[in-house]
Parts: sequence; C-alpha cells; structure tokens
Amino acid sequence: MEYLAELTDKGRQAKQAARKLATLSTAAKNQGLAAMANALEEHTAEILAANAIDVQNGKAKGMSASIVDRLMLNEARIAAMAEGLRQIISLPDPIGEVLGMQRRPNGLDIGKMRVPLGVIGIIYEARPNVTVDAAGLCLKSGNACILRGGSEAIYSNTVIVQVLTAASQKEGIPQGSVQLIETTDRQAVNALLRLNQYVDVIIPRGGAGLIKMVVENSTVPVIETGTGICHTFIDASADVEMASRIAFNAKVSRPAVCNSMETLLVHQAVAATLLPQLLADYHQAGVELRGCLETVKHHSAVQIATEEDWATEYHDLILSVKVVADMDEALEHIAAYSTRHSEAIVTSNYANGRRFLQEVDAAAVYINASTRFTDGFEFGFGAEIGISTQKMHARGPMGLPELTSTKYIIYGDGQIR
Amino acid sequence: MEYLAELTDKGRQAKQAARKLATLSTAAKNQGLAAMANALEEHTAEILAANAIDVQNGKAKGMSASIVDRLMLNEARIAAMAEGLRQIISLPDPIGEVLGMQRRPNGLDIGKMRVPLGVIGIIYEARPNVTVDAAGLCLKSGNACILRGGSEAIYSNTVIVQVLTAASQKEGIPQGSVQLIETTDRQAVNALLRLNQYVDVIIPRGGAGLIKMVVENSTVPVIETGTGICHTFIDASADVEMASRIAFNAKVSRPAVCNSMETLLVHQAVAATLLPQLLADYHQAGVELRGCLETVKHHSAVQIATEEDWATEYHDLILSVKVVADMDEALEHIAAYSTRHSEAIVTSNYANGRRFLQEVDAAAVYINASTRFTDGFEFGFGAEIGISTQKMHARGPMGLPELTSTKYIIYGDGQIR
Repeated sequence: MEYLAELTDKGRQAKQAARKLATLSTAAKNQGLAAMANALEEHTAEILAANAIDVQNGKAKGMSASIVDRLMLNEARIAAMAEGLRQIISLPDPIGEVLGMQRRPNGLDIGKMRVPLGVIGIIYEARPNVTVDAAGLCLKSGNACILRGGSEAIYSNTVIVQVLTAASQKEGIPQGSVQLIETTDRQAVNALLRLNQYVDVIIPRGGAGLIKMVVENSTVPVIETGTGICHTFIDASADVEMASRIAFNAKVSRPAVCNSMETLLVHQAVAATLLPQLLADYHQAGVELRGCLETVKHHSAVQIATEEDWATEYHDLILSVKVVADMDEALEHIAAYSTRHSEAIVTSNYANGRRFLQEVDAAAVYINASTRFTDGFEFGFGAEIGISTQKMHARGPMGLPELTSTKYIIYGDGQIR
Repeated sequence: MEYLAELTDKGRQAKQAARKLATLSTAAKNQGLAAMANALEEHTAEILAANAIDVQNGKAKGMSASIVDRLMLNEARIAAMAEGLRQIISLPDPIGEVLGMQRRPNGLDIGKMRVPLGVIGIIYEARPNVTVDAAGLCLKSGNACILRGGSEAIYSNTVIVQVLTAASQKEGIPQGSVQLIETTDRQAVNALLRLNQYVDVIIPRGGAGLIKMVVENSTVPVIETGTGICHTFIDASADVEMASRIAFNAKVSRPAVCNSMETLLVHQAVAATLLPQLLADYHQAGVELRGCLETVKHHSAVQIATEEDWATEYHDLILSVKVVADMDEALEHIAAYSTRHSEAIVTSNYANGRRFLQEVDAAAVYINASTRFTDGFEFGFGAEIGISTQKMHARGPMGLPELTSTKYIIYGDGQIR
C-alpha cells in the first residue's frame, strides 16, 4: 500500500500548489516555462542517460521497434520539447478572462470568470515528450498536474520532471505544481482514479484499452480522448478530382493517427467514375483494401469487407470502402459506426452539405476537406492536450481554454433575496 | 434481469429519438411544449388520482409530513407545472448557435456549433414537478431524457409521462424523447449508470447520499449537483447594517436550500459591534447558534461549535459562527470547509473584495450580496436544471445552454494536409 501514501501525499501537495497557481500572474508562469525550457537543454546529457536505460530495458523486454522509436530521445527531440514550452509562453493566458457580465434588475452584476480546473491527472503511454507538453500546458492554464507515464519510460520521465520542477521552483512556481507518480505499481493508477478529494479531472492519452479502463474505473470526472473511426462520404455531385485528393490524403498521409479515415463511403452515382483510379492509387500506396460487393468490382485487390471492418480503427494502411445508394444510407452508416471524432462529405450540392453538417454527430464535421485537420495546431489553438470525443466539457481538439473551468463573480451593494 | 431489458430498450429508443430531436426546429419543439402544458391541465383529474395512491402509500409507510408535502399535487401545483413548460417556450433555443467562426491560413473556415448533449439520464427524488421540468428543459435543448424518479412518486410520474408523451407525439415530437424508468427495482439505477452505449450524461438531483452513489458508480459522465456549505465573511471594513442584513438573509430566508449560509465568519475588528445584535436577531428567528470561543461571549444562546459543525450542511435553522483574526484565516477556513458552491464577503475595502473574488474557489463568489442568489432564475437564465458544483462542463446554475455540447463545423474547398 506504499503507493497509496505516495498518491495521497502527491494529491495534497498538488491541491496546495493549485491554490497558488490559480492566482499566479501570466508573467510569473511564463518565467517558469522559460526556465523549464532552458533547463531541459542544459540537462540534455542527464536526460539522455536516463532514457538510454529505458530503451535498454525495453529492448531487453522485446519491445517492438516502433515503440522503441517513440520512447527514444536524442538531442533534437529534447530541443523540440524545449521549443514546445517556448511556444506555450507565446499563447494567451486563459485565466481571469471574464466571459461577459450582465446587470440584473436588482443591480447585481453577474459575470463568468475563467479559472483553472485545479488538479489534473494525466495518464499516458510511452512518449516522454508528453511529460513536458502536459506539464507546460497545465502550468500555463494555472493547473497543478499529477502525471502517470508508462512504466517503460519511468527513468526518462523521472529525470525530466526533476529537471522541470527544480528549474521552475527557482522561478517561484509552487512545489507540487508538476509531479510524477514514481511507483510503477499498476494499483497506483486505480488509486489516482479515485482520488476525488484532490484531483478534479483525469485525462487519459493513449489507446482504446487505456481509455476504456480509465472510464470504467474512475470516480474522478474524465475527459475521454479519442479513438477515431472517421468516414469520408463522396456525394453524387462531388468534384471527382477533389474527392479523390481528399480521400487519398485522409487515409494515406498519416494512417496511425486518430483523425485519419478508416472508411470511405461512395455514392453509387460516382462509383464507376471515381473508384477505379482511386482504388488503384491506394493500392499503389500500399493500402490494403476491403470493400462491399459493389466496391470489389472496381479493383482486383479489394477483399470483401466483414462486419467487423466497419467497426475497426485500423491505425494502419488499411481502408474499408462502401458504395451507398444515397445520402441516407451514408448517414445511417456513419451513425452506426462512427466514434464521433471527424466526419467529412465531399459535395457540390448546397443542401446536402448543409444537411451533413447538421445531422452528423461528431467532434468535427467537414465539407470538402480532409479529416486530417482535426488537430489543435491546425485549428489554430497553438497547442493541444488531446482530442476529446465526449460531449461534456470539451469536444474536439483541446487547447488551453479547455483546461479551464469558470466561476460566477457577483458584485453587489447589499442585495438580499 | 427484467430491468436490463427495459433499460436497453429505453436506451435504444432514446438514442433514436435524440438523432431526430437534434435537428428539430425551434417552432416544432415549442409546439410540443405547448401541447404538453395543455395536456397536463386537461388530465388534472387522472394525475391527481395517481398522486393520491402515491400519497396514501407514502403515509402507510410512515413517510414524514414534509416528504408527503413535497410529493402531494393539487390543481394549483399542476397548473404551475404547465406554466413552467410555457415559460420554457419563451426561452431562446440554444441549438444551432455558432460560437464564432475563424478562417485559417489555408482557407478553412472553422466554427463551433451548439448541439444537444444527446441522451440525458436524470435521477431524482420525491417531487413529481421535476419530471415535468426535466422533460421540458431536455426537449427545448434537443435532448432525449430517461427519467428515474423516486419510487414513492411512481404512480404520479407514470401518469405524467404518459400524458406528456401522448400530447407531444401528436405534435411530431419523436417517440422515445421522454421516458420514465417504470420498474422500481433499485438495480435499474445501477444499470442506467452504466448504459454508456446509449446515455451521454447523468444528472443526479437530490441529497448528498444520492449524488455520492451516482458519482461512485457511474461510468457515464456525471454532472454533480450541489451540496452547499456556504460561508459569508464579514470583513473589518464592512458596513455593519449591510453585513447584518446580508448575513441574516443568507441564513434565515430559506434554510433548507443549498445556497443558504451554513457558517458566518466575522473579522475580530467588528465582532463586538456586529455580533450581539445579529446573534440576538438569529436567536429571535429561531436559529440554533453554534460558535467558536469568541462568538459565545456575544450571546448566551450560542453553543460551542465542534469540528463537525464546520463541515456540516445543516439544511436547517442552525448556524455556525466563527470570529477570525484576519482575512487570511477566513480564506483558510473557506478553503478547508467549503463545498465550492457559493461564498460571500461583505466589505468596503477594494483590495479585500478583489482578493476574495480572485482567491475563493467556488461556483459563485459574491461581494456584498446574499449567497441566496445562486439560482438559475435569479441569474436570469429563465430556467434551471440544477446547480453544478463540479468544475467540468458547467459550474453553478445550469440553464438550457448547459444542456448542450458543441461540434466543430469546417467549410473547405478541397484542402488536404
């Protein structure tokens, strides 16, 4: 039960830090961020040494080459982490903004002020850069954070958090603002998920298994981040060249991320014009193709899709393709299989575009663009802590404002009720 | 396991209804609300007959007079429920509002549109008026709802929901928009809390026990509504007459509600001037007084407060009073015991007022007014589904906009990444 003592202690420290962080000036927070960025660069050798242990342990355990690559740091990657912190400095501080104020008939002035969430628990997997990123975004938004990285990165994360906290505390950032759970005991995650007394929100960042485990076990409110079964529907009226370009990009540009397309829906009226060339392009790009009985007619490489294919996020160069009779069928398919992340229509028809935007229920709904744009940077937020696929609190890419809450502030002159 | 079949069926129907509700016009929803209001009045006799059974059963079970009173309906109460629905008609429809749209450098126009949450589960206790209220607010905001009222009101609620759904369906409101869980099996609540496939949000409305049970058992996201240990701090510079008026009102005007004051904090510099008369006024109004060692000196009726008193929401004519050395002590006390609902300072000092607003972490923070104003109607929302005391999604009184989510809508002309 050692982990419980560690967590309670960290929870208490985070809560205390959060009270101070909530009223820290933007200048003070930016000074902390700058010190953190410089410290990462200054301690590059130490961080690389710790990371080498993680990498060695991972290889000894038979970790796959792609996970080792995500885990491994080098000078350039550490410089990029520092650069990420410096970019956060340049972002506007959301805290203290008053979102409108109105005067009531009794003379009370009632406004809504942005305040930090408080203490944020972040649970994530292999990449050590998430440690720096999360610490920076939480600090700028006035939140304390308790980080739980993957056990495979524990040496890297421990040194990184030591470097960040030593540097920021020298600049007056309160102790407890950024903490890492040091035990790799798996029970510690469960304890964090039930630390309601100290933790205001849990944000899991990782695969579907991690997210599901967190949602099912947490009594602390959770912001679910995203699995993405994203669709592109090519309408009868679509410009074939544009539709092909968007559909190709949505699948091929980066298949491992959540905003990439998993299923292409094609109106039967354009299937014969569009599919032969597009399927050939996919095939040439190494995409494994699975399609409905109509689709298979248009390219010899297409395998018959199973029911499971429509419900799978491949995260890979695999694509399901379905020819639909009309827009109704496309909307029904999306309603049935979408994970409500990003959905797109390619069309030249005004009414169909408008209908798609209105009826499709997803964090981001596109007309005539690739779903790959669902991203905090592409949306102009300058940062991203994750992409929420739930409807409460925040939906879609989350930047700094999504890491805040509000409080009502009321100015009176003696009003009673 | 019959309840599981009922819940799955209701969940599926609600989800289907929610898709249609999301795109229903404001006019259509208002027509449904009007029909519901009229139907309640037309079926007054049936509703009263069902309610009489609930009241009789309650009395037979030895229900307290105050709970019987909350449960009991009469013509006036039914008319008030209908009037409540008509007021919802006059409120602006939040759905479809676009909260800003910006053009990105690549020409994409990205906006954020208000959409319904989807399916809302509402779990509440004795009052049958909550049934009507919740159904009306959910319909206007385009959400389907699954209602779980207290078993003591099951006959009343069943008839009310039948009346509401029959009337609204005639006006084209989809079947499944408003449903009541009919089984009184307690397991049904647990099943509802885990119906993630169909339910988007759970809102519990009731006592601390209900809320705690829901938070601990729900895998569906929860909006916690509120217990209130609210404080009023009378600063050294406070106008004594104003301070007394506010402090008296905050406790006495309606002690059973969550926004009433439980603890009065008095700066030592004004204790001798303010407390003797104020404590006498409380005593005269029947308020039981519990105080710190300083407070007891100012009125003979004051009992010594225990540690537990500071941490209790009395919901009654009982008040804890503490004399504090300075504002720091007041802020520490509030940070330690507040449930973050509503907190007030009475002061004439600019810096202290500003500091209180900044530093106190609560859904509503007041300068020179009674905490009793924390309420959707007083805040001008025209409606209230509850008062959120959590930081995620919505905080403070929740009106129609708090029953919505958003989605990003993106207009492109062929952009790829």
